[in-house]
Amino acid sequence: MRKTKKVIVILSGGLDSSTLAYFAAKNSGAYLKNKVYTLTFDYGQRHRREILCARKISTRIRAVSNKVIKFDLTLWGGSALTDSKVSIPLSERLPGALANRKSLKVPVTYVPARNTIFLAFALSYAETIGAEEIYIGVNSIDYSGYVDCRPAFIRKFTELAKLATASGVKGKGIKIKTPLLQLTKADIVKLGERLHVPWQDTWSCYLGGRQPCGLCDSCRLRLKGFMEAGTKDPLSYKKLPDYYKKWLYKYK
Amino acid sequence: MRKTKKVIVILSGGLDSSTLAYFAAKNSGAYLKNKVYTLTFDYGQRHRREILCARKISTRIRAVSNKVIKFDLTLWGGSALTDSKVSIPLSERLPGALANRKSLKVPVTYVPARNTIFLAFALSYAETIGAEEIYIGVNSIDYSGYVDCRPAFIRKFTELAKLATASGVKGKGIKIKTPLLQLTKADIVKLGERLHVPWQDTWSCYLGGRQPCGLCDSCRLRLKGFMEAGTKDPLSYKKLPDYYKKWLYKYK
Repeated sequence: MRKTKKVIVILSGGLDSSTLAYFAAKNSGAYLKNKVYTLTFDYGQRHRREILCARKISTRIRAVSNKVIKFDLTLWGGSALTDSKVSIPLSERLPGALANRKSLKVPVTYVPARNTIFLAFALSYAETIGAEEIYIGVNSIDYSGYVDCRPAFIRKFTELAKLATASGVKGKGIKIKTPLLQLTKADIVKLGERLHVPWQDTWSCYLGGRQPCGLCDSCRLRLKGFMEAGTKDPLSYKKLPDYYKKWLYKYK
Repeated sequence: MRKTKKVIVILSGGLDSSTLAYFAAKNSGAYLKNKVYTLTFDYGQRHRREILCARKISTRIRAVSNKVIKFDLTLWGGSALTDSKVSIPLSERLPGALANRKSLKVPVTYVPARNTIFLAFALSYAETIGAEEIYIGVNSIDYSGYVDCRPAFIRKFTELAKLATASGVKGKGIKIKTPLLQLTKADIVKLGERLHVPWQDTWSCYLGGRQPCGLCDSCRLRLKGFMEAGTKDPLSYKKLPDYYKKWLYKYK
């Protein structure tokens, strides 16, 4: 029987990271079961819905703990998510075909160096508790405008992790795992379905409120993912974009 | 006349980073004057003396602003600085000859991945305000047990910065400047003297209180630095280690 491994999962409570958490917890076969420590960031984003979802998902996967690290990126803003003066773009349209991966169109919801900050904290936590792996739900397909979701960034951070920690310099160090990196949103939904991720306990909308808006980039990508995976999103949306409504009509 | 540059200085209010802040502010000749933005971290360290010092130094160098980012590393501890159950070692002895740079003896005051976290925040701030350089006061001579003070770590982070930010991917990116990297403590004291750093407004002691203890590693290294630079430290210590007392006797 193989040894259990301690792993850290960066968990926002959204669709991607919740699927990731289930994957990390069950990435086990019959004999290997990871001990999962989830890490959630309360960084001044627009709402706390996703933090509550992260807590629920952590409970469901029986994470050893769910640490919430709080800091305030609204101190400098730089993103629609951390600066209330910048508005979140809303639209009814199907999210465009994947951007040309070489051109870089940075969305207003890009938070400068956010994944670098998240991974830095995860590294500190991993070194402290002796975790071997850090799972992060980055995805280079549907987020090609976010530089810090790209494979090259992740590879470089892995190299950095080796030099940035005593365990990395002395031993084998801490690995960065990105099982979602090359998946589309639809692939992630399919994976989540297989893992029985409770979609009703996840939150992707950039806005807060009682119901997800349905029209921000994050809602539209999520709905497109469900649609392409052939599954209905159980969340009840404030407004559904046209493409999803049409599909839903046929689905029923 | 050259253009003014925006630069960020990671400023703890200690001897090294205060000297660094003066250096960054005056790294100017007659024509080039940096616009300095200081960044200070309140991360659950044992006391707030250094945060007050960082504020004073920022005012003195006429920094554009002094942002204090607050987060709580006591959530996982892992260091004598962030875990009150681990005590700070005190000693009267002269800090040893430099550790063999290849062997790695990690001191209990090492905070896991701290510099990675600091640099990650600085990167986020730099990208947001369009700063070109980040100054960090790491020093590989007297802190060779701190892996994240080593030149290899800094080089790797510089490579990461290029991939981690939109400005890095699209443009020339953000440089990491480490003017103190190869200096001894005595060299830093000499540099600070030339720059007129107000030593009375700096704080190096790992413990809090009204006076620096004089016996923690940080106090002892500082005093050794002053001694070797041939200058008296103006701070009034609770207790002075023997080697410094002896030297002081001759100095007077």
